[in-house]
Amino acid sequence: MTATIHQIGARRQPSLDPMVALVAHEMNAVNSVILDRMKSDIPLIPELAGHLIAGGGKRMRPMLTVACARLVGYLGNRHHRLAAAVEFIHTATLLHDDVVDGSDLRRGRRTANIIWGNPASVLVGDFLFSRSFELMVEDGSLRVLRILSGASAVIAEGEVNQLSAQRRVDTGEEQYLAIIGAKTAALFAAACRIAAVVAERPEAEEEALDSYGRNLGIAFQLIDDAIDYASDAETMGKGVGDDFRDGKVTLPVILAHARGADADKAFWRDAMMGHRISDADLAHATGLLRATGALDDTLARARVYGQRAIDALGRFPDGQAKAALVEAVEFAVARAY
Amino acid sequence: MTATIHQIGARRQPSLDPMVALVAHEMNAVNSVILDRMKSDIPLIPELAGHLIAGGGKRMRPMLTVACARLVGYLGNRHHRLAAAVEFIHTATLLHDDVVDGSDLRRGRRTANIIWGNPASVLVGDFLFSRSFELMVEDGSLRVLRILSGASAVIAEGEVNQLSAQRRVDTGEEQYLAIIGAKTAALFAAACRIAAVVAERPEAEEEALDSYGRNLGIAFQLIDDAIDYASDAETMGKGVGDDFRDGKVTLPVILAHARGADADKAFWRDAMMGHRISDADLAHATGLLRATGALDDTLARARVYGQRAIDALGRFPDGQAKAALVEAVEFAVARAY
Repeated sequence: MTATIHQIGARRQPSLDPMVALVAHEMNAVNSVILDRMKSDIPLIPELAGHLIAGGGKRMRPMLTVACARLVGYLGNRHHRLAAAVEFIHTATLLHDDVVDGSDLRRGRRTANIIWGNPASVLVGDFLFSRSFELMVEDGSLRVLRILSGASAVIAEGEVNQLSAQRRVDTGEEQYLAIIGAKTAALFAAACRIAAVVAERPEAEEEALDSYGRNLGIAFQLIDDAIDYASDAETMGKGVGDDFRDGKVTLPVILAHARGADADKAFWRDAMMGHRISDADLAHATGLLRATGALDDTLARARVYGQRAIDALGRFPDGQAKAALVEAVEFAVARAY
Repeated sequence: MTATIHQIGARRQPSLDPMVALVAHEMNAVNSVILDRMKSDIPLIPELAGHLIAGGGKRMRPMLTVACARLVGYLGNRHHRLAAAVEFIHTATLLHDDVVDGSDLRRGRRTANIIWGNPASVLVGDFLFSRSFELMVEDGSLRVLRILSGASAVIAEGEVNQLSAQRRVDTGEEQYLAIIGAKTAALFAAACRIAAVVAERPEAEEEALDSYGRNLGIAFQLIDDAIDYASDAETMGKGVGDDFRDGKVTLPVILAHARGADADKAFWRDAMMGHRISDADLAHATGLLRATGALDDTLARARVYGQRAIDALGRFPDGQAKAALVEAVEFAVARAY
């Protein structure tokens, strides 16, 4: 057996295409479950849920479940239903997030809360969340239920933690990592882990997939945070400077604030309180981020997590699935270059 | 064996005391689980959740689980954790309801959304909801998980249905019953039903307890709706006329509108649109409700559901538990007299 060393940056143009191709056929089955199970006699439910679910998301999390199942050689179809459950949890979270943040755009489209109002978004989110548990119960694995109910509680805890840290520019890097570990990485980890559970693989493989997903999730979020300040970005429908204008304290801001002189610290404090929302302010912020190396170091940290994700796959056999999962990390990390 | 016929109205002053006394000892155990499991490293979570959970609720649903477990002779303690899960689902629903309705008072106290804001209420609700599933998973019964995840989805569907019917004075009685059957009665039914599941009683007993809870839940909600228009009510902290001023189309309004002359119909339509919110308008509304017999008939319907709840207990042996459950119905139905 020869060891293959995967290292980030080795390839030039990493892409999500290999993963999309790997799972395309099975994702049709997952999408059927999603469409079937967001049905309801109450027309507003499929209408609102469909807006977001059909609205250009990459289905990253269910794709990970399917790709990881392929990696561990699973031949059944239980994971289709579970991948749909994961997407429902994610969608419920997005609906509630947009209410919490008062967002008006997501993936370049008007948010559900703008079109149908906050009450409908809250309640349809609750419906999708309940439906996801129904899907898991139908599958019948208590182990999967434990993983996903645990992840859901952690996500909600992370969201509340984030709310508590809101606009507080002195948030520590550790607290920030705890927040994104909970609100983003926990579901990535669970989405990957359950593939090993349905395949009845040993605990060590469950943990390896959990680690892959968790580190990918953190890398993914850190890059997202950097992209918000990267100019001329073709960035998933997210406008440049959104986090800045919303006073979201992300890692680039935490680093630039910590490294800044007193005047810079005052600027960041003002900005996070919402008193600096002009284009000139944003340009000044981006200048500080570059001058302090905050953006570069955010990317460097993202690459470390990405490398950890790839290394977590070390125990699995080389092949199409592993190559696709590795390149998905490279793609996630390369988005900001 | 002699048949005992329980009939509503037979006793003079029905009370919840026998049920409270029946379950008091076990409710300490349930409350311990509740307090223990709303803990979090994020201080806002226990703070906000505690405001509502400690805030004077009667713990009606977990009491029903415990009392029903007693009825079927269950000797274990699995239902303590499950009763806590039921209360968490209920609390999550209340938090989200108050956001959806923009309520500022519940049980005579300021609502969590007023004190901590809508975002915190949405997210802590999500946390409690996830935590309730964690409790169920710890218990490990897929049958219980199926019942409660199904009830949760039905509740959310009912809430969306109610939102769609909002301010629509031509809502039919059937649709209204479907709404309260989902948003209120489904959790009452599930809370009772799971007692038979943990006790491993036959399906027929599960169904009998489901029927008891469901009919009690509908009666409970109908009485609540009537109380909102009943004057000099000492009414659970709910102010008289709240539903009227919020434009909530409840059964009294549906009946009065359907039975009214054109001018009355116009009045109700205006009122439900929020154009009639003075004390004089409320007095006029109450007059119409009395003149059309809408209040009396709402109470009469509530009594029918209450009687059905009591009759559903027919298969269970007489004794302290059954007497307490019967009187709980009588109490619920008598509140408006």
